[in-house]
Order: sequence, then C-alpha cells, then structure tokens
Amino acid sequence: MSQTIFARILRGEIPCHKVYEDAAVLAFLDVFPLSRGHTLVIPKEPAPTMDALSDDSAAALGRALPRICRAVLAATGAGAYNLLQNNGALAHQAVMHLHVHIIPRYDTPSDSGLGLLWRPGKLDPALGADLAKQISAKVSSE
Amino acid sequence: MSQTIFARILRGEIPCHKVYEDAAVLAFLDVFPLSRGHTLVIPKEPAPTMDALSDDSAAALGRALPRICRAVLAATGAGAYNLLQNNGALAHQAVMHLHVHIIPRYDTPSDSGLGLLWRPGKLDPALGADLAKQISAKVSSE
Repeated sequence: MSQTIFARILRGEIPCHKVYEDAAVLAFLDVFPLSRGHTLVIPKEPAPTMDALSDDSAAALGRALPRICRAVLAATGAGAYNLLQNNGALAHQAVMHLHVHIIPRYDTPSDSGLGLLWRPGKLDPALGADLAKQISAKVSSE
Repeated sequence: MSQTIFARILRGEIPCHKVYEDAAVLAFLDVFPLSRGHTLVIPKEPAPTMDALSDDSAAALGRALPRICRAVLAATGAGAYNLLQNNGALAHQAVMHLHVHIIPRYDTPSDSGLGLLWRPGKLDPALGADLAKQISAKVSSE
C-alpha cells in the first residue's frame, strides 16, 4: 500500500482542504503554497508520473482541469496561472504520486513564489526532423 | 480565423516537426527548445487557456499525454521531465493557443534551459478552510 502523503490523503488518513472530487480525481489546496489558491489535482490511480498513468485516468484528469481552473480563478481573482506537473526527482518532484500544480499568478510579482527561468536554444532543422521521426515511431509502436 | 502560430501550424500553413496527431490533439517539437526533445502538445480546439477549453478537448489532451511522454522519454533517454502549461501573459504565456510543454530533464543541469524557483509559504489552516470552501462552491455551481 502506497505511503505517499497523497495516497494517505486519498485514504482519508490525513485531512486536506478539498476543492473537488469525482470518481477518478481529487483536488485540494497545497499546504505549502507558492501563491494564494495554489491547488493540487491528483488522479486516484497511484501512478508516480504521467508516463505511468493509464489512458482513462489521464483523460479523467484532463477533463476535470478546465472547471477546477475556472473555480480557482473565480475564487481568488487571479488573472493568470501556471499548470506544472513534475516527473522525477531531477524535475523537482517531491511526492511520488502524480500531481498537477495549479499556481495562480497575480499582478504583483512578489505575490507568487514560483519563478520560471527560460533559456531556450534553437532547434536545428535536420536534428529536429530526425528526433521527431524517432519520437513519432515510439508513439506509433505503442 | 485565428492567426496564432499554432493555429497556422494546425492549418498546415507553417510546417512543424510532428510527433503525434489524433482527432483532437497535435504534438510537435518546440523550435526554441529548453532541452533536447522539448515537445508541445496542443488541442485542435482554438482555446487560449485551460479554463476556456471544452471538457471533451481537455479529456482528449489528457488521454494523449502518457503515451507522448513515454515516447519522448524512450527517444531521448531523459530520466525526468516537467509538464508546464502557462495561462496568461502574467504566467509567461507567449502564444495564445493552449499548449502543454513536455520538457525533458537530464543528469547535467546545464542540459536544461528550464529553471524553477520554488519559494513556498505555509497555508494558514483557517484561511485554507475558507478558501477551499469558496473554490469548492465555484466548482459545484458550474
């Protein structure tokens, strides 16, 4: 039985500030929020990462997101938000049960604890064509 | 007719390095990648942000993510990845057609152009209970 904190929340062993629940999905406030209204949306299926989630749970998670996002915006008055979902310790995942962060953003930069540094490169067309072919082949072979 | 670059890619007016397509979803390489294999997943529905996306498109987008993530991992050898979806200029959204970034992460920090700064607060239990009630009421009233 999974002992992640989210599995324990799902089993009712630990309380949460619940904002949404359906057959496949639970959403609740992050107790270490990056901004006011920071919400976590998790599948009930105990997958650690997106690549390990079943198609049906992933569809249910996706289907729930628009309405939860609208509710967070309506309740907080935030004008923007990031959805962030970290997979693996290298990607800053701390709890090994898949979770989508909804992080509201406000007019004042100091109002958000999330900083994004964006240092893009430029895709070489030939390398891009080759890589796209490799990824495409992997999707097709599923 | 939408003139975002992604709408033009969907209409075939601009080429892309396609990695996946189904009836509701298209995925292709970002030409300004934050790391090798940086992929964008977009709904064909022209919604600017997640809160504006239909439930059915959101479900289709969710359903496609696990297999695309697996293919990106398999083709690149990355051990971790972030999914990031920015909504609104304040949240660093640059193209106003909803897009999910799949950003592979590698062992070497210099191999990724994405930096995440995480400065969490601590949720006050009474404020949390009140806010959760407000968000929950908004979801229920949809």
